[in-house]
Amino acid sequence: MIYKKLNSFFILLLLVTTGSYAGPPDDGYRLWLKYDLIKDVSKRETYARSVQFIAVNGTSQMLKSAADELQTGLQGLLGKSIPIIASAGARKGGIILTAGNGPTVEQQALNAEGYQITNRSDNIIIKGKTDAGVLYGAFALLRQFQTLQPVTALSLTSNPKVRYRMLNHWDNPNGTIERGYAGETLWKWYELPERIDPRYRDYARANASLGINGTVVNNVNASARFLTGEYLAKVAALATAFRPYGVKVYLSVYFPAPKVIGGLKTADPLDPEVRSWWANKAKEIYGLIPDFGGFLVKANSEGEPGPQDYGRTHADGANMLAAALAPYDGVVMWRAFVYKAAGTPDRPKADRFTAAYEEFGDLDGKFDKKVIVQVKNGPIDFQPREPFSPLFGKMPKTPLSIEFQLTQEYLGFATHLVYEAPIFKECLDTDTYAKGASSGAKSASGTTVANVVDGSLHGYALTAMAGVANTGSDRNWTGHPMAQANWYAFGRLAWDHTLSSEAIANEWINMTLTNEPQAVKRIADLMLKSREIYVNYNTPLGLSRPWTGVHFAPEPWQNKSSRPDWTAIYYHRADSLGLGYDRTSTGSNALAQYNPEVQQRWNNPETCPLPYLLWFHHVPWTKKLSTGRTLWDELCTRFYTGANSVRWMQQQWALVKNNVDPGTYADVAARLETQHKEAIWWRDAWVLYLQEFARQPIPAPYKKPDRTLDEVKALVDIYLLR
Amino acid sequence: MIYKKLNSFFILLLLVTTGSYAGPPDDGYRLWLKYDLIKDVSKRETYARSVQFIAVNGTSQMLKSAADELQTGLQGLLGKSIPIIASAGARKGGIILTAGNGPTVEQQALNAEGYQITNRSDNIIIKGKTDAGVLYGAFALLRQFQTLQPVTALSLTSNPKVRYRMLNHWDNPNGTIERGYAGETLWKWYELPERIDPRYRDYARANASLGINGTVVNNVNASARFLTGEYLAKVAALATAFRPYGVKVYLSVYFPAPKVIGGLKTADPLDPEVRSWWANKAKEIYGLIPDFGGFLVKANSEGEPGPQDYGRTHADGANMLAAALAPYDGVVMWRAFVYKAAGTPDRPKADRFTAAYEEFGDLDGKFDKKVIVQVKNGPIDFQPREPFSPLFGKMPKTPLSIEFQLTQEYLGFATHLVYEAPIFKECLDTDTYAKGASSGAKSASGTTVANVVDGSLHGYALTAMAGVANTGSDRNWTGHPMAQANWYAFGRLAWDHTLSSEAIANEWINMTLTNEPQAVKRIADLMLKSREIYVNYNTPLGLSRPWTGVHFAPEPWQNKSSRPDWTAIYYHRADSLGLGYDRTSTGSNALAQYNPEVQQRWNNPETCPLPYLLWFHHVPWTKKLSTGRTLWDELCTRFYTGANSVRWMQQQWALVKNNVDPGTYADVAARLETQHKEAIWWRDAWVLYLQEFARQPIPAPYKKPDRTLDEVKALVDIYLLR
Repeated sequence: MIYKKLNSFFILLLLVTTGSYAGPPDDGYRLWLKYDLIKDVSKRETYARSVQFIAVNGTSQMLKSAADELQTGLQGLLGKSIPIIASAGARKGGIILTAGNGPTVEQQALNAEGYQITNRSDNIIIKGKTDAGVLYGAFALLRQFQTLQPVTALSLTSNPKVRYRMLNHWDNPNGTIERGYAGETLWKWYELPERIDPRYRDYARANASLGINGTVVNNVNASARFLTGEYLAKVAALATAFRPYGVKVYLSVYFPAPKVIGGLKTADPLDPEVRSWWANKAKEIYGLIPDFGGFLVKANSEGEPGPQDYGRTHADGANMLAAALAPYDGVVMWRAFVYKAAGTPDRPKADRFTAAYEEFGDLDGKFDKKVIVQVKNGPIDFQPREPFSPLFGKMPKTPLSIEFQLTQEYLGFATHLVYEAPIFKECLDTDTYAKGASSGAKSASGTTVANVVDGSLHGYALTAMAGVANTGSDRNWTGHPMAQANWYAFGRLAWDHTLSSEAIANEWINMTLTNEPQAVKRIADLMLKSREIYVNYNTPLGLSRPWTGVHFAPEPWQNKSSRPDWTAIYYHRADSLGLGYDRTSTGSNALAQYNPEVQQRWNNPETCPLPYLLWFHHVPWTKKLSTGRTLWDELCTRFYTGANSVRWMQQQWALVKNNVDPGTYADVAARLETQHKEAIWWRDAWVLYLQEFARQPIPAPYKKPDRTLDEVKALVDIYLLR
Repeated sequence: MIYKKLNSFFILLLLVTTGSYAGPPDDGYRLWLKYDLIKDVSKRETYARSVQFIAVNGTSQMLKSAADELQTGLQGLLGKSIPIIASAGARKGGIILTAGNGPTVEQQALNAEGYQITNRSDNIIIKGKTDAGVLYGAFALLRQFQTLQPVTALSLTSNPKVRYRMLNHWDNPNGTIERGYAGETLWKWYELPERIDPRYRDYARANASLGINGTVVNNVNASARFLTGEYLAKVAALATAFRPYGVKVYLSVYFPAPKVIGGLKTADPLDPEVRSWWANKAKEIYGLIPDFGGFLVKANSEGEPGPQDYGRTHADGANMLAAALAPYDGVVMWRAFVYKAAGTPDRPKADRFTAAYEEFGDLDGKFDKKVIVQVKNGPIDFQPREPFSPLFGKMPKTPLSIEFQLTQEYLGFATHLVYEAPIFKECLDTDTYAKGASSGAKSASGTTVANVVDGSLHGYALTAMAGVANTGSDRNWTGHPMAQANWYAFGRLAWDHTLSSEAIANEWINMTLTNEPQAVKRIADLMLKSREIYVNYNTPLGLSRPWTGVHFAPEPWQNKSSRPDWTAIYYHRADSLGLGYDRTSTGSNALAQYNPEVQQRWNNPETCPLPYLLWFHHVPWTKKLSTGRTLWDELCTRFYTGANSVRWMQQQWALVKNNVDPGTYADVAARLETQHKEAIWWRDAWVLYLQEFARQPIPAPYKKPDRTLDEVKALVDIYLLR
């Protein structure tokens, strides 16, 4: 139309006039799929010669997605419009997408979703056994361009190490997100199924770019709404939006749904009517969503109902749902996040740490073949640092999924910069000694948590990793711009847990922030140190759970709750003698749930790594640690250096000011300022509170806080007001 | 920098190549301040000749805002970079901004925030007595361009008719919005004061463009947090962001704050310590925010504490806060939305309708001069149609503000298209007969609600209008793209309540959607009819409050609640004889709260306008109405034609497909589809439920619903699940 041409013409004039126009500040919406023009002209020209067409043999949604993404991405990166054609024929200098079971050696090396990228006859060939494999390969090739890697002499073969690579959204039907710090839910339930927000597609694209292939769209504290016909139609509309990108939809289910929406008198998993209700419900769901992924269940946990309400076990409940899914591809992911009230009169000495294994240990081998038990990385609840959950070493006959938390519930919400890959890696790389000491050295033992989860150790038929999503309706998806890296890192590790935190950071920075090598290095350094800095000012040496009810502000003094294990003092056990939770045989003996080699190392306060010390030992204030400092002095040192290190983070960030988008720069800089303020708050809260027990001065060179404990408490109290 | 130039160069090439590039679909973020290039070339060239510079004499923030907005706006509209200069000197063909008390006749015609735009010596002169006046004039001039009006021979003088033009945000500290349907709060409390979201400025720009000059940033169900030093610093940061656009910040206050955060034993407004606490708090606030606007208070209402807890009156409470503000410019806006539980054993015959006047009537004249009493437009609670609140006719000695609700709590959330200007206008234009019948004919009486509110009738020193905001973190601010028009309409009416709904719609459509005359006409038609259509399928003939607890789904059968006046049957009073609430002398006699002329008209079911009929009368099912139909038949006719009319809305919208942005088109089209589905739901719920009382068939030509009442109820029940 004429006006559009004129419009463009005027834009042209403007650009000619201003010359250095670089667009508005980046709002972060595009995530790591930015596709901004590559600045290095010669590099761009070299790339451009390699990609003169995109040939795609097939018409499936996923192949179309792959070709479209390559076209869009290369258009942006190279500033060049590249045609999509049906067949390359004899043409050279293009990208060829091929899916299917071919006879070549390379394809034999692929699993169902793997991809292979090679150069042959001057073409770039992306192969996969399935369309999904090709789609993942397309994103992998784009990543090569985005990170300025060569696209000649390619020989990339990559297979996902686990089959179910999942996001879990704790999103409620009213739009809120439990533990969400980036706005409301992405899912507009009141608009669905009629309106499909364009953002759904971009959500699926972002996940596909990482290899994430499933998403649980509703909170594990589930509403029965989602199993009604009304809401299943909405969920089906989401599934339709995600399908072209290979992302399957799953639902969290409310265990008593047969009563609440089915009108039955019971939800007993062994009741025939209940079993029949679930079977019919599964049939209804698959009628609407043929590739529905399955169910995620939080049962008999934190007040949620479950099979134990009827005298049945977790296995009874999970197997009943598995039976309902038997005719279909779906699976049941049954969470092991359970803990009966510990410290109450009937369980006075009980340790929350041991609760999950106490409930699940005896059920090993008793689950249906369609059940995966989903275990949080640590025994408590997503603390900044936890030892791995004992279940990972002790459930050889039960497929275990690992659940990480991307949303920063205990990591400073959306204002603290904490790169989480080191948290995930620390857990995944720890040896469970599930086959005993003979299994070898630390890193090559084959019995790490990762080896358990990826099925290589016990030969699980089903393998999975889940990340509790940090996404929301904020324009940049994650609130903190740098928190996008946590979504990215989780996805990459769910695909391949052998990637290093550093490699992932480098990829993400190059794709998202800058290609300038010195700036990349500085930002990576900042990211890689950020978790340890956070732990230092927040919960050093194995402290845990010093939180207010909203999990925002420090409250180590919290000593009242409806349950003892919902107080802070239950965890740190500070007294006049020392600090920490004795979980050796003289205490709760939680360590007995680990394999002997782990026990031996952690059982002795002399050999227990300092990061885990107070997780397992009640240590005297005056005890000299391996650092040469007493416990008290070491604690103070860590609190102070942690808080001071945030200033270092600010300085690092300031050094890259000219290398990153100005809007992003300002955003992160402001959040770091908040983080610094709050790091000092955490430090002051802890040292002033613990000083009442330790009765020692703050060691030099640190100066005592310039406020009193009462003043700190008053500040915290504000965040407890309605 | 070189790469930026190359970047632009490639963008140029792209544009040249594609030719008709028109940018991505509009995401609605820019609201009515789109400033897209005017398509009519000759018009654009004519405009361009008139504006070759912007001369601004002064350096204040607001003058800078005015000049910057003109520069940005004209850059977009005309595709032309226009310099801002300090003085026009002898130059001609530009815009000159002048603030200050000049001797000219024109300026004498201006009030403090009014503006005047004239052409003189080939320049366009924008004058105001204050910088704010100039800022409003700048937006008014931009509106001339945006709506393709002439900018020669201008003689525009405009003064705001009320002094305080306010948005009320019911936003909570945890990020949720009470009755918000467009995402979370715009205010990022956890990021403030360090991080200033760029959106704060755009929020202020949008308000300034309408003349809105104040915003209450937190919910009237207020948290005491906002009065702590911690949060005042956050609020002060918002005030700083809004100040360049003349938008002042106000706070909702929690009446017992002196106890909750002040540590006092009481919040009794007559207690000297309490009074002193508030005085000190005001001093603290003004130290941080010198132009702080004041307090909004919901007290002794729906469980919120207030002065009555101490045996004091609303006036005691309000006057105490006014005393605290005495040294400053701020005011107290005290809400009259109060109603003691009606229908309870101690108030068995009480009518919620009469509650506010019962509490406030005797207090007329007893409020401090800094107090405004804020009254909802109707006596109940923002229903799709209400008669005006009786207070407007009966409080000559008390400045009354009118409170409208922009967020569609009872108007279909963010999925129904309801243009609200006709709701606001219907109330504002109704005659209160506050001076009796002699005051004249309907439209020129000088005693309409608007005449009360704008102070022209009683000479109030303080005048105000408040709109409960419909904004949230959704990219397009309001969820439904067309709901932006409600924000727009409220702002325009707060400035000048004599504007017609149609004129406002035309402005908004031209600025936001299209300038194509036929399309503008169609969209305006759709908008102007939308409220009556909604009323027809939702609550025709004066029905009200048939809502579920979430105010989303129909529940006219709801008969249980902790309070009788929180049931649905309390309001419609359906029985075997008829329908409606008898508020004549044989019933609650609420009509007695109106002036005699109003009473006379509404007291008689024969003369009572049909839209208000069931508000005031219990009407037999078989009663013949002025339409010639019985009550039952008329109800059915309205429910059915209402639902059918949504199809008409869809058809109207389809006709403008080629005239509006494709993203906006698709969005609205999908929401209309949802609206149609839900309109039928409302219709079916009502007719099937009322049929149990009326015991009559659905009249021809309408077909009875193809579902049962139980089926409708089951669907509604889904929305009541947790």
